[in-house]
Amino acid sequence: MSDFISWVSTHQSRFEEVLKRLLPQADAMPQRLHAAMRYSVLDGGKRVRPLLAYAAGELSGAPVERVEIAAAAVELIHAYSLVHDDMPCMDDDVLRRGKPTCHVEYDEATALLVGDALQSLAFQLLSEHRLNDDAARQLQMVKLLAVASGSRGMAGGQAIDLASVGKQLSLPELEQMHIHKTGALIRAAVLLGAQCGAENNRGNLTQAQLDKLDRFGKCMGLAFQVVDDVLDSEADTATLGKTAGKDADNNKPTYVTLLGVAEAKKMAAELHRDALDALTEFGAAARRLRELADFIVMRKY
Amino acid sequence: MSDFISWVSTHQSRFEEVLKRLLPQADAMPQRLHAAMRYSVLDGGKRVRPLLAYAAGELSGAPVERVEIAAAAVELIHAYSLVHDDMPCMDDDVLRRGKPTCHVEYDEATALLVGDALQSLAFQLLSEHRLNDDAARQLQMVKLLAVASGSRGMAGGQAIDLASVGKQLSLPELEQMHIHKTGALIRAAVLLGAQCGAENNRGNLTQAQLDKLDRFGKCMGLAFQVVDDVLDSEADTATLGKTAGKDADNNKPTYVTLLGVAEAKKMAAELHRDALDALTEFGAAARRLRELADFIVMRKY
Repeated sequence: MSDFISWVSTHQSRFEEVLKRLLPQADAMPQRLHAAMRYSVLDGGKRVRPLLAYAAGELSGAPVERVEIAAAAVELIHAYSLVHDDMPCMDDDVLRRGKPTCHVEYDEATALLVGDALQSLAFQLLSEHRLNDDAARQLQMVKLLAVASGSRGMAGGQAIDLASVGKQLSLPELEQMHIHKTGALIRAAVLLGAQCGAENNRGNLTQAQLDKLDRFGKCMGLAFQVVDDVLDSEADTATLGKTAGKDADNNKPTYVTLLGVAEAKKMAAELHRDALDALTEFGAAARRLRELADFIVMRKY
Repeated sequence: MSDFISWVSTHQSRFEEVLKRLLPQADAMPQRLHAAMRYSVLDGGKRVRPLLAYAAGELSGAPVERVEIAAAAVELIHAYSLVHDDMPCMDDDVLRRGKPTCHVEYDEATALLVGDALQSLAFQLLSEHRLNDDAARQLQMVKLLAVASGSRGMAGGQAIDLASVGKQLSLPELEQMHIHKTGALIRAAVLLGAQCGAENNRGNLTQAQLDKLDRFGKCMGLAFQVVDDVLDSEADTATLGKTAGKDADNNKPTYVTLLGVAEAKKMAAELHRDALDALTEFGAAARRLRELADFIVMRKY
């Protein structure tokens, strides 16, 4: 097992324990809601955003106990968006991470509340734990996640997605959609992970460095989506753990329908290179971020 | 026109302008989502929570420009909960504040995203504007709203509500539901309004004083719900601006079905008295809070 695979596996396990601890216990009132929240978040996913936060935290020397709180906040936003996305009025999907989706396992009303409560919990985590010695800077971190989640971030990307069904999008339009829908949270994961820490830490980053990291996050967010579209067009449902070929079936534009598989793969490779370029000045400290970039582009599921 | 009615009217108008300014403009991308967000928030409601925040701010001498940002955050959470509550999988209601509900005027998917994005915007407002000279204290304000909104607050109350349909609840169980569902946000409005300000302001409150205010908010939250149930059982749809008698029709327990109208009115009067008792030590500074308490209990719609 390579050192990187071991790092991923260790951090995925560690993060699962963090989530188990931070989510409301299933026997706490209201039990059904709390059980459904745990069902929707635990035991699933590659935890790409948390891994990026851990890796960005290593780059800046941020304490891992802080980084994983920020990572959990980002992952709860991601998890809530999946729960709402799968509902009948959105994508109407029955399978997620190899399990019945939340509204299938529970019911629609519960799924709606699960998403709502997970979003609240994300902001609770970012505000109740000390994540930066400078509270004013931590407020900026809260704002960063709020903007990334809202109508000019993830939720806005989903609205653009809704409006695009059955339409012929141009490549720039498709890019705009994904920069919001997937990209915003991936960038937030990187930036939040890097900013956890003491104000005068050796690891504290300049604005120019944060801009480089943001550039890395932006490229990786797009690359992630392009690779997703390629995998969705090539893989089968069992491997993906979610319904394959669904976007094309739903007449949603994808990088593959727009560019073809070969060009889409080339685009992913270019974004990968741009992402790595943005890390140049960080040297050895950015090792895990580089390895994650490779992992995200090379993955098979 | 009495001085209090004039105060209410002035602050309602002022607050409407605040919301218009803080909500994304309808011509900003994605336009349909932003238009639907404005449709769901503007031009409706008595603004009870913002009025409580303004009144609590007057009690502590907090700058009104800060108080109304906090008030807007609370009102956006309230507005999002109404949008989601009205959806077919929850209460399936078509009328709200005399207008078609969001999913009727737009569509279900948009209504889902409107609620999600309004919640994000609430936390954006609380973190991007300076609301207290002490940033650490402001982080605690963010936490307060997150807890009040989440699975142990408003969303949790809605889950208890869902579970109670068709069941015979005891009075303590009904109270637990409403303390979460309606009460949590009303308490948050009072506490956030009072905490906006400079750390060493003359108006800064002791923990004991905040506890008194919390007691006031708790009593008013329950009183508000009891009065709502009484009005719902007596008024007609045109006066309420929403579908009347709906809870009883849906076989949901209410204070009126549990206690009868006369006892419910008596309970509201007792809660009103308890609320006023909690304000005793504040003297003249709590004048607007007292008047609002009267208004909430005496209202006819």
